[in-house]
Amino acid sequence: MAYRETSRVRERKQATRTNILTNALALLNEVGFGGLQMATLAQRCSVATGTLYRYFPSKEDLCTAVFEHATEIEIAQVQQHLEAPETSADGLPAADRIADALTTFAKRALRAPVTAWALIAEPVEPAVVAARLRYRERYAGLFAQAIQQGIRDKTLPPQDSALSSRALVGAIAEALIGPLAHKSEFDPNQAITNSVRFCLQAITASSYTDSDTKG
Amino acid sequence: MAYRETSRVRERKQATRTNILTNALALLNEVGFGGLQMATLAQRCSVATGTLYRYFPSKEDLCTAVFEHATEIEIAQVQQHLEAPETSADGLPAADRIADALTTFAKRALRAPVTAWALIAEPVEPAVVAARLRYRERYAGLFAQAIQQGIRDKTLPPQDSALSSRALVGAIAEALIGPLAHKSEFDPNQAITNSVRFCLQAITASSYTDSDTKG
Repeated sequence: MAYRETSRVRERKQATRTNILTNALALLNEVGFGGLQMATLAQRCSVATGTLYRYFPSKEDLCTAVFEHATEIEIAQVQQHLEAPETSADGLPAADRIADALTTFAKRALRAPVTAWALIAEPVEPAVVAARLRYRERYAGLFAQAIQQGIRDKTLPPQDSALSSRALVGAIAEALIGPLAHKSEFDPNQAITNSVRFCLQAITASSYTDSDTKG
Repeated sequence: MAYRETSRVRERKQATRTNILTNALALLNEVGFGGLQMATLAQRCSVATGTLYRYFPSKEDLCTAVFEHATEIEIAQVQQHLEAPETSADGLPAADRIADALTTFAKRALRAPVTAWALIAEPVEPAVVAARLRYRERYAGLFAQAIQQGIRDKTLPPQDSALSSRALVGAIAEALIGPLAHKSEFDPNQAITNSVRFCLQAITASSYTDSDTKG
């Protein structure tokens, strides 16, 4: 009779996987992707290194899974602030929800700078760069929805939401690279305020007109 | 007597290196980093594959050098538009120079989309990601200078130029990822206009105020 995985086996595997990712995320917050060692992680998880490799065949696989795990947590935070309350008619205007979401993103990043650097900027293997691209699409999709709502209810000026939302994601991520990489040169609260202001001005301001941009 | 490299040997080596990088850049524009093959490149350069490896010991080394070579060309274009003419008192205001520089960057990207994707977004080896970080600092430094000039001559509102300049670089690069990755969904000229407008509004608009960003 062929081996069939029982639901109990599946649950146990899932629990081990979750344990590994939780410990990996804690380790990431200390040493970044560059310092993540399979042997150290195995020790933290109280599993054999061989077990770790059964779940994640390579360090690149592990890093990708850790990236996705960590970013899902950040995405959920952003999404919570962006989503319009469906039960109430007097929700915050789209611009304010976007400001809240960006502020939350920036605050969380500067509170966990090693993890934020790892997720946003650290030189990583191609599979993790590919995951960064996918998740930036996810972020942009969420911001695009909020921008569209703002345009519909006329609290935001007309704009290409697909383009503005990507630019927002790029702007907030890159703005934080300064404070993350050169901590001493930036006051964290000022950095958060200024990054969010940059983004909000970009999507709320009346049109900048310059004939050169039409060329 | 120990071998000493004569200036003629050095010149010949430099010429070979330049020949390799020029051909690599042409190849990059066809296939991106993912499609760059040492054997194909050697053939294009009319050198043995072994020779190629003497100049670039690994594909990662080659890709990093190609990235730097290509980005130096783009940086020079941006710099040319950003620099204030020193011989004339009636130069363009900083905001217009920044708009010109961003427009040039975006136009050149959409005109060479495979190269632009490779430079901006393609999943690449860690050494190339590290080069991306370094060059984004270079771009940001150039924009920061222009923003500071704008603040000094009061054509731009006061702002943290180190932060705004990074956000600009992030915004323009990420905005172009949409048109580069999903070409059919974007009109290139509209994408250029809208990306530049986003950036200009961010640095020129009067302050967006929202108590939540101060929290």
